[in-house]
Amino acid sequence: MQQIKNIVLIGAGNVATQLGFALQNAGFHIVQVYSRTQLSAETLSKELSADFTLSINEISQQADWYIISLTDEATLEICNKLSLQGKLVVHTSGSLSMDILKNVSSHYGVFYPLQTFSKSREIEFSTIPICIEANSIGLLESLQYIGNKISNDVRLINSKQRKILHLAAVFACNFSNFMYSISSEILKNANLDFNMLKPLILETAEKVQHIDPKNAQTGPAIRGDQKIMEQHLELLKEKKELYDLYKFISDQLKTSNQ
Amino acid sequence: MQQIKNIVLIGAGNVATQLGFALQNAGFHIVQVYSRTQLSAETLSKELSADFTLSINEISQQADWYIISLTDEATLEICNKLSLQGKLVVHTSGSLSMDILKNVSSHYGVFYPLQTFSKSREIEFSTIPICIEANSIGLLESLQYIGNKISNDVRLINSKQRKILHLAAVFACNFSNFMYSISSEILKNANLDFNMLKPLILETAEKVQHIDPKNAQTGPAIRGDQKIMEQHLELLKEKKELYDLYKFISDQLKTSNQ
Repeated sequence: MQQIKNIVLIGAGNVATQLGFALQNAGFHIVQVYSRTQLSAETLSKELSADFTLSINEISQQADWYIISLTDEATLEICNKLSLQGKLVVHTSGSLSMDILKNVSSHYGVFYPLQTFSKSREIEFSTIPICIEANSIGLLESLQYIGNKISNDVRLINSKQRKILHLAAVFACNFSNFMYSISSEILKNANLDFNMLKPLILETAEKVQHIDPKNAQTGPAIRGDQKIMEQHLELLKEKKELYDLYKFISDQLKTSNQ
Repeated sequence: MQQIKNIVLIGAGNVATQLGFALQNAGFHIVQVYSRTQLSAETLSKELSADFTLSINEISQQADWYIISLTDEATLEICNKLSLQGKLVVHTSGSLSMDILKNVSSHYGVFYPLQTFSKSREIEFSTIPICIEANSIGLLESLQYIGNKISNDVRLINSKQRKILHLAAVFACNFSNFMYSISSEILKNANLDFNMLKPLILETAEKVQHIDPKNAQTGPAIRGDQKIMEQHLELLKEKKELYDLYKFISDQLKTSNQ
């Protein structure tokens, strides 16, 4: 198994930031941060006491491990320009195949932490599933070793499975958050306080830590309570988009119960 | 302010059960449980060391406070049959007006805990908003007093506001849970483990305890990442309903950002 100590972070966004903190706390050394955006590069490199560069050509060739943590588009773009032969190179994307890295290095893989990250919100990594994939057993062992340093839940997930996980995560996270957003908007329009919904939102998420979400489903649609649904649609009649969304989701919810 | 000590619970469902426990823990005395379902009535009355009845005519006239916690339909039905003159009577519904109780007693109001309840999951009440409404100041003070015994967040909310809160709660809770359900189904169909999404679900809910959900929004739709969305739709093409739902929500999410 290859010795991993020095890391270059290619990217300074939400994932790179939180992963950088977690790896540094686990004893790894972030030697350099690359970003196209000076402010991001400067900020993160300062926080990690690392160097930074804005130029692909100045990415250090002295590190052991290179983590590409950019948008999918930027990841694809940089793969055409980057050569890190002999180095371990991974990306952190949920939706890109591992093989996009094959021209960057002969040692490549994926290190995908399944979580929603913000720069400003430090994350406890120990429970986050880290999905790993690599083009050799030796590398897979390295990624397993590194993953275990920051999380108790490191799993071998191939590119196809990872795409499905990412799709499921869109429903579980992005679409749920959009539902929170709509609820916030509905309250704002009536001068009501979104704080009132916070315990409900938290309990809804905590419930499915213990109960299958199908069994945790409550509300007028699953009960088939037509009267309440009509009342709700009446309240939404001035907001065509919300009206349609309420109706669309409720109809699907009813069907899912049949 | 009227002295409240003895309570009759009319209903033995999720809300009645958890509210019964909370009030008993706060020192109130549940003297009787009414339910149409023998098993529910027996189970809850036993847990609360109370009597129970299955007959509306045998509901005790000796208590101070009557809490009607049934489905909306059953609440409306029982209001036509019940007479509790001189007693304080409330319902716990998010969507029914206070005035449906006016023939039951001349002292009536609403005591609506804004949370999702299950019988089997005991709930910490202290952070739950209790929405109160009453037909007199004296009763309002009584409800405020009782509410404060179990929660730190008792609020005066009129019937119109309560209906809007309930609508917002459908998005924040019922529809979010439906999104969890779909993510679980997607993983099940691919033999992947739903446990992998649990930290993500929890963090998504925890994030909006501190950040406006609009600012917490992440994912392909808000970024306008057409390529990933197409990949996701391709994965869903055999499941027409999920395909349509993904597309419908993503389109709205994109629009919400404009």
